[in-house]
Amino acid sequence: MNTIYFDHISATPLHPLVKETMINFIQNNNFGNPLSQHHIGDAAVEALETARRQVAQLINAKPDEIVFTSNGTESINHAIKGVAFAKFKKGKHIITTNIEHQSVARTLRVLMRFGYQVTTVPVDRHGLVNPNDVEKAITENTILVSIMHANNEIGTIEPIAEIGKITKAKNVLFHTDAVASGGNISIDVDELGVDLLSIAANQFYGPSGAGALYIRQKTEIFPLIDGGTQEGNRRAGTQNIIGIAGMGKAAELARIEMPQRIEHLSKLRKAFIERLNTLEDIHINGHPVLTLPGLVSVSVEYVEGESIMIMLEGDGVCVSTRSACASGSLRASHVLTATGCDYVTAQGTIIFSFGIGNTLEDIDKAFTSFQKSIAFLRSMSPLYKKK
Amino acid sequence: MNTIYFDHISATPLHPLVKETMINFIQNNNFGNPLSQHHIGDAAVEALETARRQVAQLINAKPDEIVFTSNGTESINHAIKGVAFAKFKKGKHIITTNIEHQSVARTLRVLMRFGYQVTTVPVDRHGLVNPNDVEKAITENTILVSIMHANNEIGTIEPIAEIGKITKAKNVLFHTDAVASGGNISIDVDELGVDLLSIAANQFYGPSGAGALYIRQKTEIFPLIDGGTQEGNRRAGTQNIIGIAGMGKAAELARIEMPQRIEHLSKLRKAFIERLNTLEDIHINGHPVLTLPGLVSVSVEYVEGESIMIMLEGDGVCVSTRSACASGSLRASHVLTATGCDYVTAQGTIIFSFGIGNTLEDIDKAFTSFQKSIAFLRSMSPLYKKK
Repeated sequence: MNTIYFDHISATPLHPLVKETMINFIQNNNFGNPLSQHHIGDAAVEALETARRQVAQLINAKPDEIVFTSNGTESINHAIKGVAFAKFKKGKHIITTNIEHQSVARTLRVLMRFGYQVTTVPVDRHGLVNPNDVEKAITENTILVSIMHANNEIGTIEPIAEIGKITKAKNVLFHTDAVASGGNISIDVDELGVDLLSIAANQFYGPSGAGALYIRQKTEIFPLIDGGTQEGNRRAGTQNIIGIAGMGKAAELARIEMPQRIEHLSKLRKAFIERLNTLEDIHINGHPVLTLPGLVSVSVEYVEGESIMIMLEGDGVCVSTRSACASGSLRASHVLTATGCDYVTAQGTIIFSFGIGNTLEDIDKAFTSFQKSIAFLRSMSPLYKKK
Repeated sequence: MNTIYFDHISATPLHPLVKETMINFIQNNNFGNPLSQHHIGDAAVEALETARRQVAQLINAKPDEIVFTSNGTESINHAIKGVAFAKFKKGKHIITTNIEHQSVARTLRVLMRFGYQVTTVPVDRHGLVNPNDVEKAITENTILVSIMHANNEIGTIEPIAEIGKITKAKNVLFHTDAVASGGNISIDVDELGVDLLSIAANQFYGPSGAGALYIRQKTEIFPLIDGGTQEGNRRAGTQNIIGIAGMGKAAELARIEMPQRIEHLSKLRKAFIERLNTLEDIHINGHPVLTLPGLVSVSVEYVEGESIMIMLEGDGVCVSTRSACASGSLRASHVLTATGCDYVTAQGTIIFSFGIGNTLEDIDKAFTSFQKSIAFLRSMSPLYKKK
């Protein structure tokens, strides 16, 4: 049985050219330390420079504004803690939303133990933040606004550029968690008006363990990791050169292929939603238009998401019910409850996230399996029978 | 011209079996997220479990006491900041030495800005710490002692086990930076009596970008990176699975091959020192016996280390004059000045660090080049001529 992988939001397969880049780097014996004082480190220096240029180009940044990290979570921690510690004399107030990834939410909870105040602005039923709410929340003590670019569970794309105008006018630093969107939709740090932006390679066909933090020039921020002079004194420690080389290649491919990728994913998404619309008592979460091209979150009444997921896997269809980083938790998604989705419906939610290797045939097979699974599970549900 | 690589302290080449492990993992399309809810993440889960067992075995720890990080520097930051933030209500006093790697020294300097007090104990002319000095420095407010296992510039191995008895009796947490020693000499966390220990794969023929922090069970410590539930809630963010798989393999090989590796390196070191002893006005730094088996630090009077290094590279011999992480700095090494080495001699220092691929023939060629370089440079030195 062939696997239909519809869980690209958890991790994307390596692009063949990314694999090639990484394998070549390993085989060519390019093990040198980029800071070594002789030629053995040259290949590593070159790999870092190439990757930095490739990643910068993906988001319209300058190469020296890119700091390589070990993943999106580290980038986010660096952005938030780095600003919090650099600016604690100016103020200790941070603004965020109630649909952020745990990397943001938990980091802020830790800072609250150290006297930081956090204002959480709400979202509407589509998961959208109102920029006016952000503006109203800004006080004299506000040092940072951290709002995600696209939500990893429902796909909604936030009005970052509008918020960026507000933070700029109010002279408050602005970080966006672009882990779910980076490499998947067009990003221009100047258009968005952000000072800090986090991305991760394993969201755009690069490897796990490679991320980047965009830091606008002159942004006042502390390192998260102190030590050597790597990454322009902003992130100490020898880099994951092999992973970063792969990330650079993935960024280059994402930039070049983006229009075709978006077109392809949008086509898959549209076809899947058309089929979903033939089903009863289901809800498609997130914003109908302002959304990631390859993600569909569906809440199914009267059944558990976990049960659907298990049945789908029985048919070779891999999906998720929540953020991978929160798996193991049995609570309803904080994102869905933030949009006003009721507890029972939130429990019956499946996230389908498509990739560049998927086909319309995959959509058909997965839909058939989904339809069959729901029908079976509902046939056993006392609640559904009473309906 | 063949390169003779004598800079293993900056980075070690990948062991062929480590390469194979990493390349296989890439080629087998094992891209899944280890926290994903379906079978696509299984290979990553298995790779992490295998590597965790392999790394634990290398240092006689339990697998769940191993937290994978992105390098030695991150491990060190995690250990020091993690304890500092977890225990700030108990006290803010930390003890260290004046020969630590920048990852320790700079991290402590940052903490001092936030009200932490740091006591720095001295070393003797061989670079050895006196455990009595550590004992005397401990106060009621001491929360952590951080002392390196082996020094990365002069090779001296510190009396960690003796210090571990003191910290245990005084109920103070003890971290050792074992980045230079890990995988190169035998390490047993129970014999050493440490609560926290940092290692990095690129010091023992594994890849850059993979490190580990040993955290003894029940140690009170905060994460450095907050977010998802990875690494037992101690280090959030999707792991560098490919790198960690390589690190695990490297750890296994280091454990199995360690006696032969130490024997081989000791033989090379002995042969090189015998030759060095025929030269005039040079000093071998560090402890004569309590030292890393593959490292020789030599101070050469009347010439600059940088000049020797450049001439050696002209003959295909790659060495370093200081810690790679401090390259770019023109100051004399803080390690050498801590041992009482005078400024001028410290400037003329070369670190030779041998590896398992080196031969006695390499030793001969490198020594010939070294001898020739010193003679040439001294012939142009007004100071030497006046002698």
